[in-house]
Amino acid sequence: MTSTIDPKTIGKPGARTVRKHVRSLTGYTPETDETGKEKWPRGDEKAWKTSMRGLDTDIPSITKSIVGHVQTSLAQQAHNLDDLGAYQAAALSVRDNLILNWNETQMHYTRKEPKRAYYLSLEFLMGRTLDNALLNLGLKPKYDDSISQLGFRLEDLLEQERDAALGNGGLGRLAACYLDSSASQELPVWGYGLRYKYGIFQQLIAPDGSQLEAPDPWLEHDNPWELPRLDVTYEVRFYGHSERLDNMKAVWSGGQEVLAMAYDTMIPGYETKSTNNLRLWESKPKRGFDLQSFNAGDYERAVESSNSAAAITSVLYPNDHTTFGKELRLKQQYFWTAASLADIMRRFKNLGKPISEFPDYVAIQLNDTHPTLAIPELMRIFVDEEDVPWDAAWQLVTNTFFFTNHTVLPEALEKWPVPLMQNLLPRHMQIIFDITEIVVSVVEKKFPGDRERLARMSLIEEGYPQNIRMANLACIGTRKVNGVAELHSELVRLTIMKDFVDLYGVSKFSNVTNGITPRRWLDQCNPRLSNLISETLKLPKAVFLKDLYKLEGLLQFADDPAFQKKWAAVKQSNKERLAQHVQTTLGLKINTHAMFDVQIKRLHEYKRQTLNIMGVIHRYLTLKDMTPAERKKVNPKVVLFAGKAAPGYYVAKLTIRLIVNVARIINADADTKDYLQLYFLPDYSVSLAEVLIPASDISQHISTAGTEASGTSNMKFCLNGGLLVGTVDGANIEIAEEVGEQNVFFFGHLTPAVEDLRYKHMYHPVPVEQKCPPLARVLNEVSAGRFGDGGVYEPLLNTIRQHDYYLLTEDFDSYIQALKLVDEAYQDRTEWIKKSIRTTAKMGKFSSDRAIQDYAQEYWNIESTKPE
Amino acid sequence: MTSTIDPKTIGKPGARTVRKHVRSLTGYTPETDETGKEKWPRGDEKAWKTSMRGLDTDIPSITKSIVGHVQTSLAQQAHNLDDLGAYQAAALSVRDNLILNWNETQMHYTRKEPKRAYYLSLEFLMGRTLDNALLNLGLKPKYDDSISQLGFRLEDLLEQERDAALGNGGLGRLAACYLDSSASQELPVWGYGLRYKYGIFQQLIAPDGSQLEAPDPWLEHDNPWELPRLDVTYEVRFYGHSERLDNMKAVWSGGQEVLAMAYDTMIPGYETKSTNNLRLWESKPKRGFDLQSFNAGDYERAVESSNSAAAITSVLYPNDHTTFGKELRLKQQYFWTAASLADIMRRFKNLGKPISEFPDYVAIQLNDTHPTLAIPELMRIFVDEEDVPWDAAWQLVTNTFFFTNHTVLPEALEKWPVPLMQNLLPRHMQIIFDITEIVVSVVEKKFPGDRERLARMSLIEEGYPQNIRMANLACIGTRKVNGVAELHSELVRLTIMKDFVDLYGVSKFSNVTNGITPRRWLDQCNPRLSNLISETLKLPKAVFLKDLYKLEGLLQFADDPAFQKKWAAVKQSNKERLAQHVQTTLGLKINTHAMFDVQIKRLHEYKRQTLNIMGVIHRYLTLKDMTPAERKKVNPKVVLFAGKAAPGYYVAKLTIRLIVNVARIINADADTKDYLQLYFLPDYSVSLAEVLIPASDISQHISTAGTEASGTSNMKFCLNGGLLVGTVDGANIEIAEEVGEQNVFFFGHLTPAVEDLRYKHMYHPVPVEQKCPPLARVLNEVSAGRFGDGGVYEPLLNTIRQHDYYLLTEDFDSYIQALKLVDEAYQDRTEWIKKSIRTTAKMGKFSSDRAIQDYAQEYWNIESTKPE
Ligand SMILES: Cc1ncc(COP(=O)(O)O)c(C=O)c1O
Ligand SMILES: Cc1ncc(COP(=O)(O)O)c(C=O)c1O
Repeated sequence: MTSTIDPKTIGKPGARTVRKHVRSLTGYTPETDETGKEKWPRGDEKAWKTSMRGLDTDIPSITKSIVGHVQTSLAQQAHNLDDLGAYQAAALSVRDNLILNWNETQMHYTRKEPKRAYYLSLEFLMGRTLDNALLNLGLKPKYDDSISQLGFRLEDLLEQERDAALGNGGLGRLAACYLDSSASQELPVWGYGLRYKYGIFQQLIAPDGSQLEAPDPWLEHDNPWELPRLDVTYEVRFYGHSERLDNMKAVWSGGQEVLAMAYDTMIPGYETKSTNNLRLWESKPKRGFDLQSFNAGDYERAVESSNSAAAITSVLYPNDHTTFGKELRLKQQYFWTAASLADIMRRFKNLGKPISEFPDYVAIQLNDTHPTLAIPELMRIFVDEEDVPWDAAWQLVTNTFFFTNHTVLPEALEKWPVPLMQNLLPRHMQIIFDITEIVVSVVEKKFPGDRERLARMSLIEEGYPQNIRMANLACIGTRKVNGVAELHSELVRLTIMKDFVDLYGVSKFSNVTNGITPRRWLDQCNPRLSNLISETLKLPKAVFLKDLYKLEGLLQFADDPAFQKKWAAVKQSNKERLAQHVQTTLGLKINTHAMFDVQIKRLHEYKRQTLNIMGVIHRYLTLKDMTPAERKKVNPKVVLFAGKAAPGYYVAKLTIRLIVNVARIINADADTKDYLQLYFLPDYSVSLAEVLIPASDISQHISTAGTEASGTSNMKFCLNGGLLVGTVDGANIEIAEEVGEQNVFFFGHLTPAVEDLRYKHMYHPVPVEQKCPPLARVLNEVSAGRFGDGGVYEPLLNTIRQHDYYLLTEDFDSYIQALKLVDEAYQDRTEWIKKSIRTTAKMGKFSSDRAIQDYAQEYWNIESTKPE
Repeated sequence: MTSTIDPKTIGKPGARTVRKHVRSLTGYTPETDETGKEKWPRGDEKAWKTSMRGLDTDIPSITKSIVGHVQTSLAQQAHNLDDLGAYQAAALSVRDNLILNWNETQMHYTRKEPKRAYYLSLEFLMGRTLDNALLNLGLKPKYDDSISQLGFRLEDLLEQERDAALGNGGLGRLAACYLDSSASQELPVWGYGLRYKYGIFQQLIAPDGSQLEAPDPWLEHDNPWELPRLDVTYEVRFYGHSERLDNMKAVWSGGQEVLAMAYDTMIPGYETKSTNNLRLWESKPKRGFDLQSFNAGDYERAVESSNSAAAITSVLYPNDHTTFGKELRLKQQYFWTAASLADIMRRFKNLGKPISEFPDYVAIQLNDTHPTLAIPELMRIFVDEEDVPWDAAWQLVTNTFFFTNHTVLPEALEKWPVPLMQNLLPRHMQIIFDITEIVVSVVEKKFPGDRERLARMSLIEEGYPQNIRMANLACIGTRKVNGVAELHSELVRLTIMKDFVDLYGVSKFSNVTNGITPRRWLDQCNPRLSNLISETLKLPKAVFLKDLYKLEGLLQFADDPAFQKKWAAVKQSNKERLAQHVQTTLGLKINTHAMFDVQIKRLHEYKRQTLNIMGVIHRYLTLKDMTPAERKKVNPKVVLFAGKAAPGYYVAKLTIRLIVNVARIINADADTKDYLQLYFLPDYSVSLAEVLIPASDISQHISTAGTEASGTSNMKFCLNGGLLVGTVDGANIEIAEEVGEQNVFFFGHLTPAVEDLRYKHMYHPVPVEQKCPPLARVLNEVSAGRFGDGGVYEPLLNTIRQHDYYLLTEDFDSYIQALKLVDEAYQDRTEWIKKSIRTTAKMGKFSSDRAIQDYAQEYWNIESTKPE
C-alpha cells in the first residue's frame, strides 16, 4: 500500500502540501495573557525588537536604503544606473517606509475595532505615486537631497513613473482623491477595485489626425506600490445552477470557479502615520495548466481555462457611460464585488460579533451602479450561507450600503439583459426577482393599482429581452442615495429617482458635492503657488492643505500689487513649464505670452468639445477677416485640448481628428499664428493634467446644461488660479456661488430650457443657417475642405445640422459672446489677476476632505482614529 | 499641428517614452580617466560608498535583515508570521547576500575579459536553493542561530521551499551539478535555459494505483532566487520568409516576433565569492493586448497573439528521450538558442574584438541535441548580420561549439520533419541545406561513390516527410563530441557516430564521465555523514567537499570497529529520517530495521523497474511458500520505488500501477509483512532524492546493458555509503573499477550480447515458461489477478512475453541470484559496513568538480578567475 490522493483534489493549489494559515493574514492581533496583555508571540522578544527597523527619515538612512536597493533589489551599481533604475530604487525605499506605516495603521484598526467604510469603485485613477508618497510622508526635501547626493535629480526620477491609469476619467479620479482624504483624516476606509493588467489605453495620433489606441502595459516594469497578498484569495463562482430550498434559501453549485487574489496598494495620509489600503483583485485560474490536454497535444485547450480566468481582470473597459451587454464586463463586476464582500465578511467575522451588528461595523459605498451586484451578493451570503432569515437579511443589507449616482443621462443608466444574468449568475437572478417582489408589494400598498408606476419602478424592464435596471436596484438596496453636485442631486430627485422619492420620502436622497485633494491638485502640481500661499498667509503648508478654507486669507491680498505680481509670475512660470514639457515630449513650440485656454476631459458629445473647436474656427475666420492692424489689437490665445475618446465612439473620434487638422492649418498660417495657436496634446492622463492645469488662464466646462453631473477638473483649474468659462451645469454653479458670478464666465441656456429646445429641434427644426449664421459659416468652411477633406467630417457636422441634441446651435452665440468677455477681461491684466486670486481663495469647499467628511458623518457614521 | 506618431510603432513597448539604455545592463565598466583609472561614475563618491552595504555575516546583521524583510517585503509582523513567511524572509535576506557576490563576480569578469563557457541546457533540475546557498556562503550556522532566536527552526523553513523542477531527470540534474562545480571552481561559466512557468508535473497516485499528473505551479509564490532583468530582452522571429542574396547570405523577415526576457538565477560557488549566473528566458508578446479586437468585442482574438507568445515558455515537456515532431517544442528550442546567442553575441561585441576571435572568447556546450539549432543560428548571425563569409563563419562556428551526447537509444535520437522546420524557421532550413552541401563534398572526397555512407551521414534522412537528423548536425557543427561514461562514449563511437569517426578521426570523440556535486549530495543531504568524515579525517569539510579524492583517507578506518559503529549509526539515523518523512507526508510506517532497497529514477522500460517489481513478487511468492520458521531466517527488506512516468508512456504508467497494487497486497499480508515491505513514494524530486539516497543500503541500477548512458544517482548512492546492484552498464562500470568488483553486485548479460539476443527474440522466440520458469510464475500470478484485475496488466506483461526487447527473461535468473548475494552479504553486517565505507571512500572520481575540470581543460579551454 502506498499513499493515494483523491483525484478530485488534483491541480488545486496546495493539493500536495496544504499550507497552514498560521494567522498570516492581516486582521489578527497577538494572543493575550490572563491579564489581557499581549504576549510576545514568538522567539526572543529582544532579538526581534532590536532588529526591527523604523522609518528612514534622515538623509544618511535614506541614502543607505536607496543604495541598498540599487545593490540588491536591482543588482545594479553606480556606473550602470540610469534614471529608471534610480527611480525604482528610490521608490522601493519609499515603499519600505509606507509599508511600516501601513502595518501600524492596520494593526491599530484591528485592535481598535472601529466601524469601517469600504469604497467600491470599478475605477481608481491614481496617477503617479512617488511624489505623493513623499509629500504625504513629509520626506520630499530629504529624498531630494539624498537623490542629488547620488547624482540624480528628483524631478527626473518622478518622470520615470508610469501612471496607474485604472480609470476612464472623473469617476476614477474622484475615487483616488477620496482615498487620499480618508487617509489624511485618519478615517478607517479601504478601497476595493480590480487590478487590471492593462489600464486605460494609450492614445496616439495618426498622421491623418485620428486617434489610435495602444495597450497600456503599466505593469511591464515591477510596480513598487503594490503588495501581492498570496495569502488572500477567494473563490468566485460563475454559471452553474441554483436550486431553491425552503425559507427563500438556495444552493448554487457547478459552473466555473475562479480565484481572486489581493494586491494591496498603500494609501498614505498627509502628515499622519495613517496609511490606508486600496485592495485590488486579480483573477487567476483555480487550477493551473491542464496537463492532460497538453500531453494529448492539445495545447490550445490546455491553456484555455487558465486564460479565461485570467481574462477577467485583463483590461479596463475603455468606454465611459455606455458599456453594457458585454458578458466580460458583468463578470468583472461580479468577480470584484464577490471577492470584496468575502473579504469584508471575513474581517467582520474576526470581530466575533453577532451578524445582526453587521451594519454597525460596516458601511459600503457603491460608486455608481457598477458594484450593484453587491446587494444580491450580500443577500446570498446572509441567506444562503449565514442562515439569516430573508427579511432580517434585507434589513441588514439596506442598512449597509450607500449609493452614489453619477449621471442622469438616460443612455448611461446601467442595464443587464435577464438572460445574460440568468446564465452567468443564476442565484443572483433569483434574488433579484425576490427583491422585485418586495418592491411590488410596498408600491402596491402605497399606490394601489398604479400599474405604470409599478412598471417604472420595477427592477425588471419589460422588453425583448427583459433588462435589469441596476439604478433601481441600487436605490432600493441602499440606505441613502446621493448625487455629486447640488444641481445633479436635484435632477436625480426630479427625474430618474422621482418615483422612489415618492415612495421613500426625500430624506433618502441627498447630495455630496465632489471634491479634490489639495495635496495633489495644489501642492504637488503647483509647488510654486503653494509656496507663495504659505509665505503670504504665513502659514505652514500643512495648515491650508488640511483645511482648504484657510485660503480665504488670500482675499485680503488680492489688491496688493506686490502680491499680484508674484501671483502672475507663478502662473507665467507654470505656462513655461508646460511649454517646456510640450517642447520635449512633442517638439512643438508654444507662445507663452498668450492666454492659455484649456479644455481637457474625456471626449464626449455632451461635454461639447465640438462647441469649442467650432469657436476656435470662428475665431480663426474672424482673424482672417481682419486687417493686420486690427489683429494687433487682438488678445493672443493658445487653445489646448486633451482627452481620450472611447475607441468605439465614432463622433467623438471625429472631433479629435477635426481638432488636429484645424490645428495643422491654423498654426501654419502666418497671418494668424501670432494670435491663435491650437494644440491637441495626446494621451491625456493625471500626470498631464498636473502640468496643464496650473498653466491655464481660462478653462472650458461647457456641457449642455443638465448633463455634467459635477466635473472635478473645473475645481482643479480654479484652485490653481484659472478662471472658468462654462455653462450653468454641475459644480460650475457651486463654484460661481463661492467665487461670485462676476468671476465666472457663464453662458448658454439653463437646464429647465433643455427639454423644450430638444423637443423643438425634433419637431420644428430650423436650419442652422437661419438660427445661427456664424456657426453655419464655420460648418460650411469645414465641409468645403478648409481643414482637409470635408467629407470626412460630415457625420460630425450632421449631429449639429440635424436634431442637434446637445444644443450647439442654441448656445453658440452666447458662447462666442462669453469668449469675447473673457478676452476683454484678460486685457485688464490687474483685474484678471484679482479674479484669479479671489477664485483660488474661495475654493475651500471643494476639498475632498470636506466631501469625505460629509460621507463619514452623514452616510457611513464612522470616526477618525489615529495610530499613536 | 500637433505631434503625430507612426502607427507602426503602436503597441511596441516603449513606443511613447523610449527608454534610454544608460548602460543599465551588466557587462559595462565605469568610464576611465586619461590614466586609465576608473572614474567615479555619478554623484558624490563618499555618499555612495558610505551607504553601500556589504554581506550580512554576523548574527545581529542577519537577524536585522530577516526582520526587515518580514516588516517590509512581506508586510507582516512577529505574531502573524508562519513558517512560509519566515522562509521567505530568510530567503530574501540570503538573496541579498548572493546578489552582492553576483555583482562582484560579474564585474570581475567584465573587467578581466576571460574566455567564457556557456552551458546550454533545456533542463536545469535545481531542486531547492536556500540550504545550498547557506552552505556555499558558509553562513548556515549563523542563519540557524538567527532563525532560532526569532522562534523558528531552520529545517522547518527549508521544507517550505518548492523545488525548482525545470527538468525531467538525470540530464537536468547534471546541468545543475555542473553549475555548482563551475562556480565553486571560479570558472567563468553561465548556464542558459528556459524559465518554464510550469516545471515537471506533480505526480499523484489515484486510488486505483495509477499515476495522475497535476501542473507544477512552482512560481505561484514569489521566487526569491531569480532576478527579473527587464532590461535584457531580445526579439526572436518565427515563420516569415527568407530571401537569398549573393554570397550565401539571406534576409529573413515577416512572420511572428516574440520577446525573450531574461531572469537571472544566482549560482553561488562553495566557499568563494564567485557567484555565476544561470540565465533563463521567458517569452512575452512583443505587443501587449490587441485593443482593436477587444473594442470590437472580439475578446478571444485580443488575447490570442499575446497568449501564443507566452505559450512558448509555459511548460516543460514532461517526456524524456522521445518528444519529437511537436511544433511548440521546436519553438522552445529555437526561442532559447536564439535569445542565448543574441546575448552571448552582445557580450562578445562589448569586448571590441574582431569577430575572428569569437572562439577565443566563447565556448558553448550543447547539452544533448536540444540546442543544436544554435549551429545554424550562429551561422545566420555571422553570415547574414555580421557579413562574415560563409566558410570563415563555418570555421568560427565549429570552433565554438561542443556537443554532449546523452543516449544511443535509436528511438531517442532527435529528428525534425523538414516541412515543419521549413515553415517555422525558413532561414535555418536553408542553412541546414547549405551545411549538408559541406558534408556531401567532404564525404565524397574521402569516400568517393560511397552512396550508402553519404545517405547515413547526411543531415537529411530520406522519407515521407524528410527528417533532419539533429545528432548529425550537432556532430558536424562542433569541435568535440563526448559521451557521458566510458562505455557510453565507446558506444557513441561504435554505433551512431561510426561514420563520423571514419571521417574526422577518433580524436574528435571523447568521454567525460558524469559527476555529482558533493556539496549537495554529501554535505547537504547527509550532514551526519559529512560530519563523521570530517571528524574522522580530521579535515575541515571544505577540504574534502572541494577535493573529493580526499575521501580515500577513509579506507584506513574501514576496519576500525569504533568507526564502523558510527558509520552504521549514521545510516540508521538516515533511515529513521526517511521513515519519519514518509510518516508525516504519507502516514505510512516503515520498518527501519530492515534493509532498504531503493530504485528511484524516471520510469522507463530500459531502466527496468519491471524487472525489480517482478523480483519483488518473486520474493513474495517465495516467502509465502516458506514455513514461518524458514521466514524467520530471511533478511527483512523494504523495497522503495519512486519515479515519474512520461504522461503518454502507457507501459511505464502500468508499471507504477502494478507496483502500487502489489504493495497494497504485500504490506497487508500478515505472513510476510515483517520480511518484505514495498512502497511507491509519489512525486519523485530532487528533495525527495535527498532524503531517500542517504537512507539506502542497496540501490538498483539495472538497465539493459548498453542502454543507460551513465546514470548519476548510482554515484549519489555510493557516495552516501549505499551499495549497488546493477548491470554492467553506464557509470556502474566505472564505479566498480573504483570500488572494486567485490563491492558491487553485478548481474546480467553484457552489452555485446544484447544485439544477438534481441535478434533471437525476434526470429527464434522461446516461450518464457521454458526460458525462465520463475519469471513465468510471477507473470502468471499477476495475470491471474493476485494483485487486482490481471487484465489491466496484460499490455505490460506482453512486453515481456513477446519480443522482450529489454531482455528481462534473459536477466531474471542472474538478477534473483544477485539479490540473493545481496541478502547474504547483508547478513554479515560488519563486512557490509566495510563495503559501504570503501565505496564512499572511492567516490573521488565522481565529483562534478572533476568532470567540469575535464570540460574546462580539454574542451572549453577556460581558466579559473577569482574576484578578489
Ligand atoms: C486624467 C483625468 N481624466 C478626467 C478627469 C476629470 O475631468 P472632468 O471633471 O473635466 O470630466 C481628470 C480630472 O482631473 C483627470 O485628471
Ligand atoms: C529528481 C531526480 N531525477 C533523476 C535523477 C537521475 O537519476 P538516474 O541517474 O538514476 O537516472 C536524479 C539524480 O539524483 C534526481 O535527483
